[in-house]
Amino acid sequence: MTPLLRQVLSQVNGPDPRLNEIVSALVTHLHAFVEEVRPTEREWLAGLDFLIETGQMCTPERNEFILLSDMLGLTTAVDDVNHVGPKNMTPSSVEGPFHSPAPQRELGAWISFGPERERGVPTVVHGRVLDCDGTPLAGAQVDLWQANDTGLYDTQDDTQDSGNLRGLFTTDADGRYCFRTIRPSSYPVPTDGTGGRLLHAIGRHPMRPAHLHYRVTAAGYRPLTTHVFLAGDPYLGSDAAYAVKDELICHPRERTQGWEMAGPYEEIEFDLNLVPLHWKEGQ
Amino acid sequence: MTPLLRQVLSQVNGPDPRLNEIVSALVTHLHAFVEEVRPTEREWLAGLDFLIETGQMCTPERNEFILLSDMLGLTTAVDDVNHVGPKNMTPSSVEGPFHSPAPQRELGAWISFGPERERGVPTVVHGRVLDCDGTPLAGAQVDLWQANDTGLYDTQDDTQDSGNLRGLFTTDADGRYCFRTIRPSSYPVPTDGTGGRLLHAIGRHPMRPAHLHYRVTAAGYRPLTTHVFLAGDPYLGSDAAYAVKDELICHPRERTQGWEMAGPYEEIEFDLNLVPLHWKEGQ
Repeated sequence: MTPLLRQVLSQVNGPDPRLNEIVSALVTHLHAFVEEVRPTEREWLAGLDFLIETGQMCTPERNEFILLSDMLGLTTAVDDVNHVGPKNMTPSSVEGPFHSPAPQRELGAWISFGPERERGVPTVVHGRVLDCDGTPLAGAQVDLWQANDTGLYDTQDDTQDSGNLRGLFTTDADGRYCFRTIRPSSYPVPTDGTGGRLLHAIGRHPMRPAHLHYRVTAAGYRPLTTHVFLAGDPYLGSDAAYAVKDELICHPRERTQGWEMAGPYEEIEFDLNLVPLHWKEGQ
Repeated sequence: MTPLLRQVLSQVNGPDPRLNEIVSALVTHLHAFVEEVRPTEREWLAGLDFLIETGQMCTPERNEFILLSDMLGLTTAVDDVNHVGPKNMTPSSVEGPFHSPAPQRELGAWISFGPERERGVPTVVHGRVLDCDGTPLAGAQVDLWQANDTGLYDTQDDTQDSGNLRGLFTTDADGRYCFRTIRPSSYPVPTDGTGGRLLHAIGRHPMRPAHLHYRVTAAGYRPLTTHVFLAGDPYLGSDAAYAVKDELICHPRERTQGWEMAGPYEEIEFDLNLVPLHWKEGQ
């Protein structure tokens, strides 16, 4: 620790212990960063200018700092430290910017109503909501949102009505949920801002692998926000937002009949294991 | 190192090795910060919102990110790593936002022309520009700026003409510089933005101890930007910008005559030792 850092830390003495803790840790790591990379003054100012530009392009509809946080794996890191649980829980994964309130739908309903329904790969998605011991949770809410076959959400695309490719489902007595849709597509994060510039500079593509996005709630259990990814997607190993976890990759199966489908389709089966609200490490 | 961090680092592969190095180190320290303080999602988003607000209050005249950098000691840390030199050099110290081109003046000239000249403590400032072996440097340029007795620079204050309390001097054959002025005052950094909010939250005052600001150049030597502080200032131990170094504190002496002064005054003597341009560690 440099004498300078010691002096800075000695002067962090606000009334809120948690804020003092956060600022002290941040200051310590940023000073260590400076000692390690020894930035020139020009490099340091370029970094501050990058932050200014990032702040100035944020609007109520666009949060470029969240995008930076996503693409450096920090959003996932924060998600991880907040969702520690038993080994067999379904891992949490970041919420991203595309959630919006979904219409309540019947189990088995179609959620695809736009032109993608003709173009896309018909897909049946089903599974159960369970606790971590495998007990089914009846009456759980499954809130689902996904992009279409061109990688666009309803909120980004004039060809989709509001609520398209979204649905809110209530599990049955056996904890089951089910819906019919089309296969989602991978898509790029926005690249026209500082986030895109950073991705380009460090040699990364902007793609997110195709996924279904879930938010599951059940009385007495922790809400779970997560993704379900599709095996075989070329971007699984290099998600721009680092949201992929092995347990979240499903293997769609090709089917020719069943589930009241008119022709060939893919079947995705995915169970979600929720963690009791009052779970504590060591239990 | 978490598996997530390992994955993020493995994907930093841009064409510029220095940028890869900087991003990798920053990512490593920010992930360590997250692991250490385990921010809640609400805390993390509050931090990102703070950065957005900081960016959005920046203008061509005001750089709130530099202010944050100053008040966390980071600007000084960057300055320090860029100005390593022989033990007897005059330490560098941060430039701050108040430099502007100064009028060339004769040695011994007054630099105070505003109403502060009547109110302030008359002060003679003199010394020599030397190399680190004590050899005088003739023809060195000493660029000087300071606040007045109420803590304001000409650029902030309608009662001062442009160029007031600024001067550009050329050292004589013995490396000497000299000027007449009034004693500067301590002053607060701006507190009406996110920087002020941070200071308040961590229990710090916004004051900078009184100082004279120097930028010294001489052919064949590293330019030196530094402060000269006045012993006895109550804020020497808690400079909001962490710019104070022991070697930069001078001891004004009370005088009754000399230097063509009409009455009692204070004398400040301060020599500056420059580092040869091509100095290398270990020489």
